[in-house]
Amino acid sequence: MKQATHQIYVPTRGKGLYDFTAQVESWLAAQKLQTGLLTVFCQHTSASLVIQENADPDVVADLADFFGRLVSEDTRLYRHTAEGPDDMTSHIRSALTQTQLSIPIHNGRLALGTWQGVYVFEHRERAHRRSVILHLLGE
Amino acid sequence: MKQATHQIYVPTRGKGLYDFTAQVESWLAAQKLQTGLLTVFCQHTSASLVIQENADPDVVADLADFFGRLVSEDTRLYRHTAEGPDDMTSHIRSALTQTQLSIPIHNGRLALGTWQGVYVFEHRERAHRRSVILHLLGE
Amino acid sequence: MKQATHQIYVPTRGKGLYDFTAQVESWLAAQKLQTGLLTVFCQHTSASLVIQENADPDVVADLADFFGRLVSEDTRLYRHTAEGPDDMTSHIRSALTQTQLSIPIHNGRLALGTWQGVYVFEHRERAHRRSVILHLLGE
Repeated sequence: MKQATHQIYVPTRGKGLYDFTAQVESWLAAQKLQTGLLTVFCQHTSASLVIQENADPDVVADLADFFGRLVSEDTRLYRHTAEGPDDMTSHIRSALTQTQLSIPIHNGRLALGTWQGVYVFEHRERAHRRSVILHLLGE
Repeated sequence: MKQATHQIYVPTRGKGLYDFTAQVESWLAAQKLQTGLLTVFCQHTSASLVIQENADPDVVADLADFFGRLVSEDTRLYRHTAEGPDDMTSHIRSALTQTQLSIPIHNGRLALGTWQGVYVFEHRERAHRRSVILHLLGE
Repeated sequence: MKQATHQIYVPTRGKGLYDFTAQVESWLAAQKLQTGLLTVFCQHTSASLVIQENADPDVVADLADFFGRLVSEDTRLYRHTAEGPDDMTSHIRSALTQTQLSIPIHNGRLALGTWQGVYVFEHRERAHRRSVILHLLGE
């Protein structure tokens, strides 16, 4: 049994979902494992992770819109407003989605379903470079 | 340290929660491990996973109703409508719950709390056969 | 490769978020592992887990308020009301957040981001002693 860790950065350009499945798969392929478990961990509280459909780009746009409606940017609702109207909403949207995902590895590949992609969900208006830790266990 | 993977199918008959704890425990028992980590991964973006109370069936009915109110099926809200009014809502409800759960193994059994069961949360009207990947590490 | 499990209790005093990062780190330090994966599992369906900002206490207060607005305690909305108006809402708030979190270990420490803390999110009014299972794999 072997393990490996790696840090990747996912660049974002404002609110929305950013598919980084290829970045994960590329590192995984270099590890030469057949079976295992890959954990993806987002080191932020104003961006998060989600597995979503990768076939129709309308899906991730609709998803981002939904969270826009669900978590109002009306600053009168929040105490924590010093960093702008998109800060507290980012923490809430992160709590409603994932900070971490673990995906089984089968035959050397992520055992994702046909239509599944792994996304960083950026909740801030401003561009960021999001740090994601990868951890792999397997053989 | 040993690992094993397995694919199971959970049949669903429309929207709602389907307890598949027994299917997971049955496979786990055959692996003869004492301590470890079991990961359950749902290979879909219109069905998801959730751990919920298994004592009173009203709980999962109320939970399904809540998501029905929270994520409106009004198709005017969405771009992605080609597959029907319950398609984009399914992706959103999946993002709000889990695609993956990891559960510690203690004394050869899932370390669930007394009232916890593991459910597939089906978000589509139509019956499906949902693919769930199990991954086990331990000894 | 080594693994270890441990049960900790997080005392709560009504609805809100309780930082227990130090409890986890203290146990982790005693395990003397450099690299690995730590899984935190909450054995309840009326309390959950969340990773949130630990710098400004307003963040977790705002987060708790948001869930108060999102999941109404109006008992006419629910079948499952025998245990009081904060019971079914607790199950729903748990489903919307996490029952389990896995965090990579790097250089013997949790690979959390600078501002990330690990919290029990208590959804009941009454004080509880919440059972959390820790599982560690690594070397």
